[in-house]
Amino acid sequence: MPDLATHDVRITGFASYLPELMHDNDSLPPLDEPVSSADLERIGVYRRGWASAAEGVAEMAAIAARRALERAGVAAGELDLVILANWTRRRYLPEFAPKLKKLLGADRAFAHDLGCACAGFLYGVGTASEFLRNPRFRRALVVASEQTSQRARPGSRGTLILGDAAGAFVLERVDVAARDAGRLIDYELAADGDHHQIMEISDEGWVQTHIPQRDLCSLAARSVHAVSSRLLERNRLGLADVAWVIPHSGTAGVQAALVRELGVPPERILTNYASVGNVSSASIPVALDHFVAAGQVRAGDLVLSAAVGGGWYAAAALYTVGPVPP
Amino acid sequence: MPDLATHDVRITGFASYLPELMHDNDSLPPLDEPVSSADLERIGVYRRGWASAAEGVAEMAAIAARRALERAGVAAGELDLVILANWTRRRYLPEFAPKLKKLLGADRAFAHDLGCACAGFLYGVGTASEFLRNPRFRRALVVASEQTSQRARPGSRGTLILGDAAGAFVLERVDVAARDAGRLIDYELAADGDHHQIMEISDEGWVQTHIPQRDLCSLAARSVHAVSSRLLERNRLGLADVAWVIPHSGTAGVQAALVRELGVPPERILTNYASVGNVSSASIPVALDHFVAAGQVRAGDLVLSAAVGGGWYAAAALYTVGPVPP
Repeated sequence: MPDLATHDVRITGFASYLPELMHDNDSLPPLDEPVSSADLERIGVYRRGWASAAEGVAEMAAIAARRALERAGVAAGELDLVILANWTRRRYLPEFAPKLKKLLGADRAFAHDLGCACAGFLYGVGTASEFLRNPRFRRALVVASEQTSQRARPGSRGTLILGDAAGAFVLERVDVAARDAGRLIDYELAADGDHHQIMEISDEGWVQTHIPQRDLCSLAARSVHAVSSRLLERNRLGLADVAWVIPHSGTAGVQAALVRELGVPPERILTNYASVGNVSSASIPVALDHFVAAGQVRAGDLVLSAAVGGGWYAAAALYTVGPVPP
Repeated sequence: MPDLATHDVRITGFASYLPELMHDNDSLPPLDEPVSSADLERIGVYRRGWASAAEGVAEMAAIAARRALERAGVAAGELDLVILANWTRRRYLPEFAPKLKKLLGADRAFAHDLGCACAGFLYGVGTASEFLRNPRFRRALVVASEQTSQRARPGSRGTLILGDAAGAFVLERVDVAARDAGRLIDYELAADGDHHQIMEISDEGWVQTHIPQRDLCSLAARSVHAVSSRLLERNRLGLADVAWVIPHSGTAGVQAALVRELGVPPERILTNYASVGNVSSASIPVALDHFVAAGQVRAGDLVLSAAVGGGWYAAAALYTVGPVPP
């Protein structure tokens, strides 16, 4: 682990939040064209959250963040920085992070939003870990809070896939986190300008993809493979050393392409895509929280997380899981 | 300078770009209500740029960036990271930084956008300087590229004030920049959730301020004073040690409030607001480039830059100026 050798960043808390309203396939508003049960099976999502008006981006982020802070034993007032990943409700201004800071009472933190589409959470984790090299910053909060459901045209098949959720990590420099905790080992970030326009949002606000789904899945898998390989090689590790791969999984097709590309047994790739839908940048902390709560991911496990995002972004992180929170 | 003691970041290149079309007060499209010459005097802007369709955010950024890279003697392919500050053309996705990366040929850099309104450039400089602590990153490009004119309602007085521009810094760790260059001494970032909604953008895309201009000017001046004081104190410096204050200057009222609040002789506060308008996050690198070209700011001068932004953000940086570029 040559690159982070000079500092040791711990993941002392993590948590997630799903909206009150979780639509199953029957409760979703009707689609323009009915979907066969075979198609539903292929799409692979049976439940997804729709945030209410009271569940804004900052409000969802605050609930996930408070749980993560509690598990970390960190008071909001002790935070030095707050990074909020969100692109699905992005506005010119204001951003959401200052509001989140206020909701939490993170009085002395600086705070800003980060886009980077579905790769925003890992971009935020990488950025926060670098701030923690500076002696004057010791505790960081990185939250992803997305309302992906807002980017699907009502009546479209996208409404089956896109859902809302939030997830959070508390990161601390080891000198303030001497107790046992997960460790952020290293991360890798990438951007690909050749594919910056393959995904766009229409004037109405709906996701549009300008290349065939098959090509998108293949590009996603290749991008994840590339950042993951660089990350593992730099840390003299291989996929065989990793207990679990917890990727952002945009669609079932991406998931299948990932399994093929990485050559990892499917049972070691964990997503909760089926039960929450594509929750964009929130997918990794939400899945981690879910599989830790389910007892599948355990303290000490080495995890590789990777994400791609429209833009085009790719990012990966290697970390161990701390003691399972109550 | 206790906080950056472990690494030494140099500003090895800086540059700026103004659109081809610079409107003077007579060439601007007519306003809904005519403005008296006394009011024009009070508003204080006599020229501002309007980007053409060919001058997109990434394209303007690329021109400023190429000049800065040339002055730094750095090839785009040597960059490790690219941060692009922009909020005035912000989209859900794609962001502009991957396109900028492609335009420059910054093949191995990761790249992302940053919002933070008018404070985005300094937030980007602070963030980039932290990435440069990591041994695997050595050269960073931070560019602000704003099309503020797009956020003024046509026919409104805002069109007199809001203009388009781009500005760039190349930052390098000292071990790769042994030659004489400006030095980034330290920075300070802040976010204020209590005022997150005082500025918003209407559904049509126009800037709206929800507090009286007088209160906005006062808040801006207090925020600049607060981050600047913390920054100077941490570095055991006072305003008397600073050769020039180069602030983001949103309006003539903010400028006047700043002069009062900082207690600095007005002639030591440099903005080119009158000749470019409010160019948001681009204002600091644009003004630096302008006043260096004019011979007013000279190699070795210690500069304090500070900005506030709707959100509410505040940021400041202390740096010395390198040899004046040809």
